[in-house]
Amino acid sequence: MMFNAKLQQTAQKNQSLVCLGLDPDPQLMPKMGVFEFNKAIIDATSDLVCAYKPNLAFYEALGIDGLGALQKTVEHIAGKVPVIGDAKRGDIGNTAKAYAKALFEVFGFDAATVNPYMGYDSVAPFLGYKDKAVFVLCRTSNPGAANFQDLACSSAHGPHRLYQVIAEKAQEWNKADNIGLVVGATYPEDLQKVRQLCPQMTLLIPGIGAQGGDLDLAVRYGADATGQRAIFASSRQILYASQGSDFDQAAREAADKMRRQINSILSQRSAG
Amino acid sequence: MMFNAKLQQTAQKNQSLVCLGLDPDPQLMPKMGVFEFNKAIIDATSDLVCAYKPNLAFYEALGIDGLGALQKTVEHIAGKVPVIGDAKRGDIGNTAKAYAKALFEVFGFDAATVNPYMGYDSVAPFLGYKDKAVFVLCRTSNPGAANFQDLACSSAHGPHRLYQVIAEKAQEWNKADNIGLVVGATYPEDLQKVRQLCPQMTLLIPGIGAQGGDLDLAVRYGADATGQRAIFASSRQILYASQGSDFDQAAREAADKMRRQINSILSQRSAG
Repeated sequence: MMFNAKLQQTAQKNQSLVCLGLDPDPQLMPKMGVFEFNKAIIDATSDLVCAYKPNLAFYEALGIDGLGALQKTVEHIAGKVPVIGDAKRGDIGNTAKAYAKALFEVFGFDAATVNPYMGYDSVAPFLGYKDKAVFVLCRTSNPGAANFQDLACSSAHGPHRLYQVIAEKAQEWNKADNIGLVVGATYPEDLQKVRQLCPQMTLLIPGIGAQGGDLDLAVRYGADATGQRAIFASSRQILYASQGSDFDQAAREAADKMRRQINSILSQRSAG
Repeated sequence: MMFNAKLQQTAQKNQSLVCLGLDPDPQLMPKMGVFEFNKAIIDATSDLVCAYKPNLAFYEALGIDGLGALQKTVEHIAGKVPVIGDAKRGDIGNTAKAYAKALFEVFGFDAATVNPYMGYDSVAPFLGYKDKAVFVLCRTSNPGAANFQDLACSSAHGPHRLYQVIAEKAQEWNKADNIGLVVGATYPEDLQKVRQLCPQMTLLIPGIGAQGGDLDLAVRYGADATGQRAIFASSRQILYASQGSDFDQAAREAADKMRRQINSILSQRSAG
């Protein structure tokens, strides 16, 4: 089944557009192993989310053991919920092929985030996996995003900010409906512009919660005309809702709260 | 000791500006383990190069075992020659910090390549390691590089291609002489422009050999006024010079040939 179909099926079944970031941080986690922590979080939330998104940095920082825990985590999810490898990789064709193999075959992710700076041949090897998907970084949620992504560029479509040129290019590459875009919730006007440029692409929207993105605007501007094709990523706010022994139950409640908030904003939007 | 000092010391001792890419590819390697292959290559070339540059993609594609071999490879080099982790990472500040920890503390690289698309806070955590360095992707060697890196952008310094804006910005960030730039040999005129914009930054110049970059132009345009501050990366052409049992000796000869060619171009340049 193609990624977007799998994502939509899970979103519908769980009535949820929440994408839960699995970013283990030993300083915030209860004292336990990374896999055990992830397993408890997954078991407590898998009926409330539409996707999981482990960021590889947090596992690499823990060395070989961390990467082993990541592999076991993906195996534990076992196809029940799509898993996006937040890797932000990008390299020349021959090397990008090795990254695609690592992410899709070795780790078994259903999708991966990629950095577009190196252009088409850095993305193409990922697109060869027909059932998988990539999310191309477009307008990221961090303060430094403005350094380059906001530059005014001339393009075939006239003058545009760099992130808009990238959105249009990714849409042009998206012949098989297996490319989405990463657009942060922290710049809602830019999110709105990307949605206008790309009315049908799936948007992965991080920056809600710890990073301060406004959920209301993110949902209003991010979802497509039918209230779909957008997933809202949160990590720390859900994972570390409690640092006590009730951390998994607290994560469940935080995920459910976000899920309901999104659904309520969507019904208000369609009513208004 | 700071990275640039360490690099210069090794370059001087070995009279070499060759940076050898350690990119194990089981389809091209003799039938042996990745660490054993790397060890033989390192033992045959460590007096002929100024740096090693393993690209993480090739190890990740081999799973946990591949990453274990990478760790052993860096340990085997053991500070004798600087090691650049070709990782092309880039993420928001909190996550970039985890990547910096992974690359500099877990794997123990002396420097790492980073992707600048996400801006300053995606690079800053790497700069906190005073003895380490980063190489910021500027003008990459692949065909798709033109997609975005060549866009005409308006910047504080007037209209520029995106890669030029990035070169200037990286130079501005380079307060502690621990930032270099990645500029491919496959676009010699662009390399020349970057060198003009950034007369003193260290350039990591890939694309020589299998990718078809011209060594003569790369050396003439890439080295600084004193014939330093540029390192020339080659991987497949050296590693796989022979696929027989003489692979290490053949790699030694190929590395030495490239070393002599670079030195000869440099002496012609300073004579002319």
